[in-house]
Amino acid sequence: MRKLYVIGIGSGNPEHITIEAIRTMNLVDVFFVMSKGEAKSDLVRLRKDICERYIDKTSYRTIEVVDPERDPSIASYVSRVEVWHEQRTLIWEALIENELKEDQCGAILVWGDPALYDSTLRVIDRLTARNKICFEYEVIPGITSVQALAARHKIMLNGIGESIHITTGRQLSTDLVHDLKNVVVMLDGECAFEQAFDKDVEIYWGAYVGTDKEILLSGKLIEKMESIKAIRQAARVKNGWIMDIYLLRNSASR
Amino acid sequence: MRKLYVIGIGSGNPEHITIEAIRTMNLVDVFFVMSKGEAKSDLVRLRKDICERYIDKTSYRTIEVVDPERDPSIASYVSRVEVWHEQRTLIWEALIENELKEDQCGAILVWGDPALYDSTLRVIDRLTARNKICFEYEVIPGITSVQALAARHKIMLNGIGESIHITTGRQLSTDLVHDLKNVVVMLDGECAFEQAFDKDVEIYWGAYVGTDKEILLSGKLIEKMESIKAIRQAARVKNGWIMDIYLLRNSASR
Repeated sequence: MRKLYVIGIGSGNPEHITIEAIRTMNLVDVFFVMSKGEAKSDLVRLRKDICERYIDKTSYRTIEVVDPERDPSIASYVSRVEVWHEQRTLIWEALIENELKEDQCGAILVWGDPALYDSTLRVIDRLTARNKICFEYEVIPGITSVQALAARHKIMLNGIGESIHITTGRQLSTDLVHDLKNVVVMLDGECAFEQAFDKDVEIYWGAYVGTDKEILLSGKLIEKMESIKAIRQAARVKNGWIMDIYLLRNSASR
Repeated sequence: MRKLYVIGIGSGNPEHITIEAIRTMNLVDVFFVMSKGEAKSDLVRLRKDICERYIDKTSYRTIEVVDPERDPSIASYVSRVEVWHEQRTLIWEALIENELKEDQCGAILVWGDPALYDSTLRVIDRLTARNKICFEYEVIPGITSVQALAARHKIMLNGIGESIHITTGRQLSTDLVHDLKNVVVMLDGECAFEQAFDKDVEIYWGAYVGTDKEILLSGKLIEKMESIKAIRQAARVKNGWIMDIYLLRNSASR
């Protein structure tokens, strides 16, 4: 039977890959790579570097697929994403059917961990539900940018016995952030940290964490907010893209 | 200057170790290992296996340290843990001073990731604050049991755009769990999931995840609760210890 591996490859530091991921990559006949266009070509190169560094077998193929755009005319965020997942599902179905022989292994390499803010497993759920192609699959976890951020700042995510909340920039305002002590924010394109105006909040911020472009900054949110916004904007202009993440901590709670 | 590495080694599957962790382990002169007594000797053996499998150099030493007990007479959980951290700090201070030469590297191997419910970085903060010994340190992230659980169940931790809450059994009742959609519970010795009585809650449970003793179970919480309690109790008796984790998901939200 066809086999598909969904492999977490870390969030930018090529050494964050696991032995399990490397062993699995060396079983793969066809790598399916979603391409998001030129802007993030740093990431494409980094992924290619990872493959060249860790795959010993020479007989694998790589198939690049242009990721469909999300339809901006769909107002609801969840509906917009669901339509996009359905488009991806049809693309994947055709790819697996046409490019993978019955006894072959395919793989999708995922930044970070397939369980955290990545759509691959949802697309696979849809493929399984459609039941048109037959395949097995396995999931290989990978180091997330959350973990890379904490390691580089040398911090814990939680205070003693405390909870940790992981959310998106979009959700930050609707979550009960003022009741939460440790909030990790991912996928924030709009500097949503400006909304966390509590004086006691500390921010631990990082961009391109684990890569040679890494920028780290931490301190009282109220004091660092403007610097982070300026540094973030400058880095985005310079590199053509940015991927950043931060922890907000209510320091009164420590 | 002395150097100390705090290295995440994954949560039980020896293949979850990263290339960074392996490279770092091969720089180390002295491994400091906290021992918790016979009950968790499976974990001691597993850690030893990891060292033997991935360390090529032959000249390293391992120093076992008996972890101090937490004082049950201290009623407050946070105070009890803080006293325990202070005891650990004094032990570590003496160890680093006596066992590590000025130009040597020491390491502490941490299950999972040093950023998540582990006390090592807090002890290092205390050492730094005491300022009696001089050392540099670095943190190497590792795959957590949260990630191992999700990978083995082949699930995402979040619904589309949703937040994720990571908490402890102790905290579960005080967190606003009914407002939260995806709750990961760690360090739960008391089956706190019984408190999450919402009919729509699904549980994805795992014990010894990633090891050869792994047990996985999932479904409607209300239907699986009693089985999980029974299986958990039987496994604890059989193995002398248990380490389990689960995700509670409000399925109405998907």
